[in-house]
Amino acid sequence: MDTHQAAALRELLCQQDVAALGTLRRDEPFVSMVPYALLADGVLVVHVSRLATHTRDMEEHPGVSVMVMAPRAADVAPQALARATLQGDALSCPRDDPHYAAARQAYLARFPDSEPLFGFADFSLVRIVPRSVRFVGGFAQAGSLTGEDYAQLMSSAPTPP
Amino acid sequence: MDTHQAAALRELLCQQDVAALGTLRRDEPFVSMVPYALLADGVLVVHVSRLATHTRDMEEHPGVSVMVMAPRAADVAPQALARATLQGDALSCPRDDPHYAAARQAYLARFPDSEPLFGFADFSLVRIVPRSVRFVGGFAQAGSLTGEDYAQLMSSAPTPP
Repeated sequence: MDTHQAAALRELLCQQDVAALGTLRRDEPFVSMVPYALLADGVLVVHVSRLATHTRDMEEHPGVSVMVMAPRAADVAPQALARATLQGDALSCPRDDPHYAAARQAYLARFPDSEPLFGFADFSLVRIVPRSVRFVGGFAQAGSLTGEDYAQLMSSAPTPP
Repeated sequence: MDTHQAAALRELLCQQDVAALGTLRRDEPFVSMVPYALLADGVLVVHVSRLATHTRDMEEHPGVSVMVMAPRAADVAPQALARATLQGDALSCPRDDPHYAAARQAYLARFPDSEPLFGFADFSLVRIVPRSVRFVGGFAQAGSLTGEDYAQLMSSAPTPP
């Protein structure tokens, strides 16, 4: 992935705040919507209810897929829309987790209205740690990154709000 | 699902034209972006390259998940965004398939610029036939439909462009 693509990937993930989350349910993929925040190393943070089926899916099968897409624009062909798929592991992040404080801070910086939900016992934070990233910046502009290279790329920029 | 929700679901699927497609890859979900069209009974039509990994995924594991989401709006909380997940089977639709003509017509009506791709041997149409549909219209506005009820709902309205 060249420098231009890397910058476009970072910009996409920082500017968007909702993703398509693919979990495994009864041996099939299931895609749902999830708001996300980013930690400084590009790890995604989601805040999910134990009542939601995707939460149970992630507990049973931590391997998940997260797709973030640029908004549809009238003057861009749909096939040329920038999008990234992050393949990774969903790790529960309870209050005694060393990552909890940073994850909560990152999430509330993006979604301050979610603060009351942190008082409910059935909501919890989950960190999604990418193992690999696939980015399509437009027509014939696809590239891949290992989880390590992705973390390095995201760490090299200021933390987004 | 009440009448209001049914109308909102139909409107969402007709107004959007790109979806998050969840396929099964090496026993894990993988989410990618895919433009889609709709047949009169709500079956989704996608036009995919054999070179794309999601195409091979669908051949190996026809059970897929398709999520369509309303555009992000500044005045709507992300958790309140309307979205639908259609769980169904991806069925190859070659030129000699009885559904081919209608599928091609629906796809080209939405994506006329894709016409040249129909001349390439490695592109083909796939119909995604929903078995169940989950719709979230906003806060505390979730509902489900069987594939049959969904087909009936979509058939009861004029075919979208």
